[in-house]
Amino acid sequence: MKAGIIGAGRIGKVHAKNIAMFVPELEIKAVADPFMNEGTESFLKGLGIPVISKDAEDVLKDPEIEAVLICSSTDTHADFIIRAAAEGKHIFCEKPVDYDISRVREAIAAAKTAGVKLQIGFCRRFDHNHRAVYDMVRSGKVGKVNLIKISSRDPEPPPVSYVKVSGGIFCDMMIHDFDMARFLAGEEVEEVSAMGSVLVDPAIGEAGDVDTAVVTLKFKSGAIGIIDNSRKAVYGYDQRVEVFGSRGAALNANDTPNTAVFYGAEGTVSSSCYQVMWDRYTGAFVSEMQAFAQAVSENQEPPVTGEDGLYPVLMAVAAAKSLREGRPVNIAEVS
Amino acid sequence: MKAGIIGAGRIGKVHAKNIAMFVPELEIKAVADPFMNEGTESFLKGLGIPVISKDAEDVLKDPEIEAVLICSSTDTHADFIIRAAAEGKHIFCEKPVDYDISRVREAIAAAKTAGVKLQIGFCRRFDHNHRAVYDMVRSGKVGKVNLIKISSRDPEPPPVSYVKVSGGIFCDMMIHDFDMARFLAGEEVEEVSAMGSVLVDPAIGEAGDVDTAVVTLKFKSGAIGIIDNSRKAVYGYDQRVEVFGSRGAALNANDTPNTAVFYGAEGTVSSSCYQVMWDRYTGAFVSEMQAFAQAVSENQEPPVTGEDGLYPVLMAVAAAKSLREGRPVNIAEVS
Amino acid sequence: MKAGIIGAGRIGKVHAKNIAMFVPELEIKAVADPFMNEGTESFLKGLGIPVISKDAEDVLKDPEIEAVLICSSTDTHADFIIRAAAEGKHIFCEKPVDYDISRVREAIAAAKTAGVKLQIGFCRRFDHNHRAVYDMVRSGKVGKVNLIKISSRDPEPPPVSYVKVSGGIFCDMMIHDFDMARFLAGEEVEEVSAMGSVLVDPAIGEAGDVDTAVVTLKFKSGAIGIIDNSRKAVYGYDQRVEVFGSRGAALNANDTPNTAVFYGAEGTVSSSCYQVMWDRYTGAFVSEMQAFAQAVSENQEPPVTGEDGLYPVLMAVAAAKSLREGRPVNIAEVS
Amino acid sequence: MKAGIIGAGRIGKVHAKNIAMFVPELEIKAVADPFMNEGTESFLKGLGIPVISKDAEDVLKDPEIEAVLICSSTDTHADFIIRAAAEGKHIFCEKPVDYDISRVREAIAAAKTAGVKLQIGFCRRFDHNHRAVYDMVRSGKVGKVNLIKISSRDPEPPPVSYVKVSGGIFCDMMIHDFDMARFLAGEEVEEVSAMGSVLVDPAIGEAGDVDTAVVTLKFKSGAIGIIDNSRKAVYGYDQRVEVFGSRGAALNANDTPNTAVFYGAEGTVSSSCYQVMWDRYTGAFVSEMQAFAQAVSENQEPPVTGEDGLYPVLMAVAAAKSLREGRPVNIAEVS
Repeated sequence: MKAGIIGAGRIGKVHAKNIAMFVPELEIKAVADPFMNEGTESFLKGLGIPVISKDAEDVLKDPEIEAVLICSSTDTHADFIIRAAAEGKHIFCEKPVDYDISRVREAIAAAKTAGVKLQIGFCRRFDHNHRAVYDMVRSGKVGKVNLIKISSRDPEPPPVSYVKVSGGIFCDMMIHDFDMARFLAGEEVEEVSAMGSVLVDPAIGEAGDVDTAVVTLKFKSGAIGIIDNSRKAVYGYDQRVEVFGSRGAALNANDTPNTAVFYGAEGTVSSSCYQVMWDRYTGAFVSEMQAFAQAVSENQEPPVTGEDGLYPVLMAVAAAKSLREGRPVNIAEVS
Repeated sequence: MKAGIIGAGRIGKVHAKNIAMFVPELEIKAVADPFMNEGTESFLKGLGIPVISKDAEDVLKDPEIEAVLICSSTDTHADFIIRAAAEGKHIFCEKPVDYDISRVREAIAAAKTAGVKLQIGFCRRFDHNHRAVYDMVRSGKVGKVNLIKISSRDPEPPPVSYVKVSGGIFCDMMIHDFDMARFLAGEEVEEVSAMGSVLVDPAIGEAGDVDTAVVTLKFKSGAIGIIDNSRKAVYGYDQRVEVFGSRGAALNANDTPNTAVFYGAEGTVSSSCYQVMWDRYTGAFVSEMQAFAQAVSENQEPPVTGEDGLYPVLMAVAAAKSLREGRPVNIAEVS
Repeated sequence: MKAGIIGAGRIGKVHAKNIAMFVPELEIKAVADPFMNEGTESFLKGLGIPVISKDAEDVLKDPEIEAVLICSSTDTHADFIIRAAAEGKHIFCEKPVDYDISRVREAIAAAKTAGVKLQIGFCRRFDHNHRAVYDMVRSGKVGKVNLIKISSRDPEPPPVSYVKVSGGIFCDMMIHDFDMARFLAGEEVEEVSAMGSVLVDPAIGEAGDVDTAVVTLKFKSGAIGIIDNSRKAVYGYDQRVEVFGSRGAALNANDTPNTAVFYGAEGTVSSSCYQVMWDRYTGAFVSEMQAFAQAVSENQEPPVTGEDGLYPVLMAVAAAKSLREGRPVNIAEVS
Repeated sequence: MKAGIIGAGRIGKVHAKNIAMFVPELEIKAVADPFMNEGTESFLKGLGIPVISKDAEDVLKDPEIEAVLICSSTDTHADFIIRAAAEGKHIFCEKPVDYDISRVREAIAAAKTAGVKLQIGFCRRFDHNHRAVYDMVRSGKVGKVNLIKISSRDPEPPPVSYVKVSGGIFCDMMIHDFDMARFLAGEEVEEVSAMGSVLVDPAIGEAGDVDTAVVTLKFKSGAIGIIDNSRKAVYGYDQRVEVFGSRGAALNANDTPNTAVFYGAEGTVSSSCYQVMWDRYTGAFVSEMQAFAQAVSENQEPPVTGEDGLYPVLMAVAAAKSLREGRPVNIAEVS
């Protein structure tokens, strides 16, 4: 099956390479990016991709292309979903679909109406460590879920210029954790309550955002979730989850580049976690693409649906409102 | 120096034994408990304690006794502090001093007026694992504190009859974690926000309490704290803390009875954490008593002061109010 | 640079795929195997390899092919090295070169005379965990090396038919560990002393081999090495090393498929190590091929030389002699 | 039951204190040491021990004393066992009984003839971590034992003056590990093969000993044991065992003073193991004394018998012979 990619930034290139190497069901025919430059073009040609363009329409209108990966900037996601759906193409769209809930709904509706698959790029669902905890929960090992705890900390804050247009920490960063919370819980959140502070860089505060945030979630069953985010962990990209239930607790640790340990006079030292997202979630990016290819080629529901794209946005909007208003916010208030 | 103990329940006996074995500066002369029975009497005599009584006044009025340990039920703590202070005796009092904030204040004032030492029984401050994290924080290794996370889960809920008179999960159970949060942070909390659910036993809900609770704390510096409590962890007594700061994160794991690991066909298996509090905090009970003896004999401020007894009660009251009213509560509202 | 592969069994196919995916400097032009079958042919064609043959000469005589990978059965290694050298081709040869020491020497000499690179397939040197210990040793962190311990256990014994022609556990299995010991120590072994038993399967004993073996090594500096091998570890493919020196100890643990841990009533359970070699050393196979491509294209000494192929064979022969004769054997005796 | 102690050095004092604190069945009536000094006398009186003497006969001849702990220098052990047995007293004797095998046999025979209990001070059998591995082996979890690995490394070598009279590393240090090997295996050793080097301090070599030693053991069943010893591990007192069998492997890690971990920019750092034997085996010393008291008071075979004292000496003598003669030595040769 032939596929096309819209957006050739970092994530677009990662998907292109992963498909070329690990997803035999898909063949990238075209990649379009208005800012296409020589380096990117040469990289993509090296993968054997024939059509390199600056115009997304070269992807969207190509009748041979059956699936489109939307890897462009967030503000264009909803439009491209709607366009791709109109062309009858299956869609993989990076997260978040949009910060505007009605736009997200429109995009989902467009895909549904067109009868095309729509998968959202919540790659962490495909991570081996998070998946192992998920499997323990789903298999019943953990029993009834009582608590979900997620720590998610970046090694470095993004540039302040990016912070200003990012939609804020809840939409930009914690959205992954909102998805993870739903994924692990297997149920929906009713209420969110947020705390946030500017502790890493005052410039982030001046840009109207916080850099350290904690959100508590109340699920329909009464289970409680806790997410903490920090824009800066000097020791690397820290990603851990824990699910505590009536029969036990499932939790994971960070991956490390190796398992070597040094017993020295000053203590016992082992490797830090990975420093960057791309190293940490290498396998997850491959797996999500394989899952998309499988869903499309076997005509199944994708493992991360349009609705799965909507709910985390609702949670992010509610969290931002909670932080702003200093009170818990019910999801129904923002739906 | 001669000491007396009021209250010969579980904790009173633990202190009596620890003093006999590990605290040479103190000599228990008398133990009083209105419900003194033969078994307890024989246990205490076995430790070489000469005076066993049903009347606390036998401790309080003995002019030889310079220090009193108050190990009776919570509702009597404040009274006994006031009485012991009036008799000019140094005081170690189990936590919490009282659920009524004005009573706590009175008790503290009485000790101050009398010029006697008052130490509150927050034993976890003396635990080797929590202390090791604390030391990393205080030494500056962690840098500026951004997040504090505390998990504290009991192996079994107490009887519902106890739940009814316990003062609720925040006063009875999370109070230790409120103290730990202040201890680790080295600063005061301004705001608390609570979530709670009945997930372990509906009878706890019928008794007007929750059995699963999460509280987020906003410290004066903007640092954020998260505490989760559950009345029932099937795998034992789960006690972990984490402090995340500008230079790194310090966290600890549960103690286990041994370090043995089994590599088997079904996976890698190691020992659970301890099943009961007394095994987990064995060393902490000894250390807190040694610290009390040292503070008194060297005429120093005790390591856990009366004010340290007050603040966690304020936090517990605020947390209960937050849960009841569904909104964050500022500590100033309940002070 | 164009390369050819002789031998299209499991390891030949792994190298072919890894080169296609991860080693852009090399392009496989031809693969030859006398037992080439349809499945293998279709797999190789899927990688875009143009020439598929049953005759090694189609690789050896192709003037375009500059590098040859010898992945055929051990008894053919020396011959193919000599042939490839005669054709002026750079050589990557799977371990061991041969069980006959004089044949190994001939092969090495042939490569030297022809001025071609010769790299031996001791892939474990490229493993991230072993490499991390190696780096700690080489950086001086461990100080002067006193002890080296290597555990290497297979999940399942090979078929007895294979055991009979395998050259014995020392040549077939422990040879990797002999190489690892030299690699970690950075010096040569003077004496080996072997113990062996048949504890896994009596049929292995009937075939004249042992299935459980321990060899101690005396290095020139006086440092002591210990290797243990078992043909069957029910929990998977167990591969650990430890280097103890004057400044500390460096050791590693097995990789696991994930980091998830379950706290249950029965204990704390985490994932077993990998079950099969190919999963455990996935990255090592890639890295050794990249290292070979780099050595050839940059005209450098390969990281595992012909001599590195010789010494482990000497050690294996000495170990077998030690076991047979029930006494320590000096390497000089078998050289 | 009243007990006496002969020898008031470090270990004698540890036993005295542990009995006073944790072994209610025993009451120390007398302690004798020819070098008794004021500090020791005052320490012992502080434990409430009435008779402090310079003459062992004050212990041996006291008719009230039913059990004697021999904590004097090794060269006096056998004599005191024989004397104590002659007086009909139960005996706990520190390891090793003697370096002279016939003297060990005499001592054992004397106890047997007199019908008194004789327990040897192999305290590590009572350590929680080693015991946990032992329990896994005995319960059948590990299956048939194939390999036993023991690492035992001291933080600092003893003074050379001590090395000279110590009997050598095998009798002085590895003797504990010989006992542990038998304990874990549950069977006897047939053959030992030793390697040794002087890598820590040349003065140890000049004193005729080695400071780094590896011994391989062949058990009757064919199982193989490996012990490594070093006189100096800069990171502390390193004590680990591993038993590998047909159903899995049981292994343990060192205890650490706490479980705290620091995630820093330089890596992940946790506490070293304990620095000194007394901290590492605190609990084991208590447990062995409780076991001795129980064996005597319940008239049972002690958990470490005189024969358990003999076999490790045989192994040590064989190991020394193996090192000297550069060949494996059968235990029968030295028995």
